Amino acid sequence: MTQRIVQLAVAQMGPVQRSDSRDSVVKRLIAMLHTAHARGARWVVFPELALTTFFPRWDLRDQAEIDSFYETSMPSAATEPLFTAAKQLGMGFYLGYGEIDGERRFNTSILVGPDGRIIGKYRKIHIPGDAVTQNSAPIQHLEKKYFAVGDLGFPVWQTDDAKIGMCICNDRRWPETWRVMGLQGIELGMVGYNTPSGYVQWDEPIHLRMHHHLLSLQAAAYQNACWIAAAGKSGVEEGAHMIGGSCIVAPTGEIMAKTLGEGDEVISFDCDMAIGDNYRANIFHFARHRRPEHYGLLVERTGAGDPLGKEPQ
Amino acid sequence: MTQRIVQLAVAQMGPVQRSDSRDSVVKRLIAMLHTAHARGARWVVFPELALTTFFPRWDLRDQAEIDSFYETSMPSAATEPLFTAAKQLGMGFYLGYGEIDGERRFNTSILVGPDGRIIGKYRKIHIPGDAVTQNSAPIQHLEKKYFAVGDLGFPVWQTDDAKIGMCICNDRRWPETWRVMGLQGIELGMVGYNTPSGYVQWDEPIHLRMHHHLLSLQAAAYQNACWIAAAGKSGVEEGAHMIGGSCIVAPTGEIMAKTLGEGDEVISFDCDMAIGDNYRANIFHFARHRRPEHYGLLVERTGAGDPLGKEPQ
Repeated sequence: MTQRIVQLAVAQMGPVQRSDSRDSVVKRLIAMLHTAHARGARWVVFPELALTTFFPRWDLRDQAEIDSFYETSMPSAATEPLFTAAKQLGMGFYLGYGEIDGERRFNTSILVGPDGRIIGKYRKIHIPGDAVTQNSAPIQHLEKKYFAVGDLGFPVWQTDDAKIGMCICNDRRWPETWRVMGLQGIELGMVGYNTPSGYVQWDEPIHLRMHHHLLSLQAAAYQNACWIAAAGKSGVEEGAHMIGGSCIVAPTGEIMAKTLGEGDEVISFDCDMAIGDNYRANIFHFARHRRPEHYGLLVERTGAGDPLGKEPQ
Repeated sequence: MTQRIVQLAVAQMGPVQRSDSRDSVVKRLIAMLHTAHARGARWVVFPELALTTFFPRWDLRDQAEIDSFYETSMPSAATEPLFTAAKQLGMGFYLGYGEIDGERRFNTSILVGPDGRIIGKYRKIHIPGDAVTQNSAPIQHLEKKYFAVGDLGFPVWQTDDAKIGMCICNDRRWPETWRVMGLQGIELGMVGYNTPSGYVQWDEPIHLRMHHHLLSLQAAAYQNACWIAAAGKSGVEEGAHMIGGSCIVAPTGEIMAKTLGEGDEVISFDCDMAIGDNYRANIFHFARHRRPEHYGLLVERTGAGDPLGKEPQ
């Protein structure tokens, strides 16, 4: 089996406070870009909403302040130096940010090629949390207030190095996300996230947040025979803690690299895309083993409905 | 949150050799049934093809010998004592066996209620392996030779204790299996398996067999907010080793009980069905968060096709 190595890095970010300027954040991203390059990486994955604090934790009312958390163009003046540095180094990257498109607002990521071209754009589809404040908790999760449901599907892009797909944060918990990309032959998935360690809706034991994050990525990588690179924004932002655990997962479902801390931290791994071929050719040879004639409910129902089981005649 | 406890047991089986009689195997099942009852269990899960050795490892040619591995009725004369004992103890169970239905042969499981009634039947849909011998390996995996694809879908049955679904072995690796049941509100999934530690198609490191088994179950339980009880036939059958790792997994994705060895072994846990309600009401509130309009490929494609990504305009 001929190796097909993609030199990959994940750039986890420590917290971004409300007062941090775009310029200061982009400087941090560029510093990690250089670290990744020094490790030999050709691609680097940055977090979801990487340019600002995770503002959906607040029920903001000042429209000007709300607008300040989104980008109206990409690259923007503030992010241009990141694009320029990456192109000079011949590196591609994934970057998450809040996008304003006319009247619509999306939780968006872009895939930028080593040549500096924007190869692809993804808009988050599985928007978690609520549209209105739920209770008196100081930390809310109001993504449904700030973002429309993505309208670009779950595409996979054929690049010179690999078939690359993107998703964002909560998307990673949904097997539908990964299977739709698996059915396009995804070899490398990139995902940015901001995952609060507390949960506003119920008292889930905090240790489960990391468990569910890693479990979802490992299962998705195994079941779709792809590598997954996940970059989180981590640590305490404005008094709210978010998990770290940025990682690179192999098609074996094993974690090959993981961050140690909750600050700005670069991890890297030389990922052999050919590892997935064995799974695609055998246990997960979809054409031989999948049975869509029995999967109809996946698209016929949105929410859970009645059990269909009948007693045998 | 009011608890809804289902007292559950998993009965792992050690090997069943070619020469072992049905009667001797059923005696072992009944012995474990009594052990489970002594632990307070009301339901017990037995393995896939529990009544015989895992014959798909061989490319058999003698039709009479092949037929000897299937049941033509259920209960059969040999299994009647198991049904009788379970009814007397007021226990329900899951049992896997080879089924002959006219000209068709299936890898089947039944769900028998504590009242002795057969509540449901499932026929394995994701048939792994091959229809013809692949190479000179002494251990083959020829399920496609011996079993037709199941024709009963993935139903969930509303019982007095819980909404229960069934699948078999390789089905557990496919997220489609669990999501179709999740969309019927499954609270408890039962799965039997026979998982060879070696793999005929390629040199996968052996430790990954257990990793993929547990990973698939834990992700399925978490992503569908259900308990999962998995019972394997384990140890060395006719010179071929199969993994153990029979377990009970919670909707948190955590393993709450697991077998220690590779022989006949009963594990049990008092499973609170209400644990799943938090997940169904929040992070996995399907009606609020799923977006089937973006899932079309799941049923439009069987095998993997071309990437759909286009450069943004």
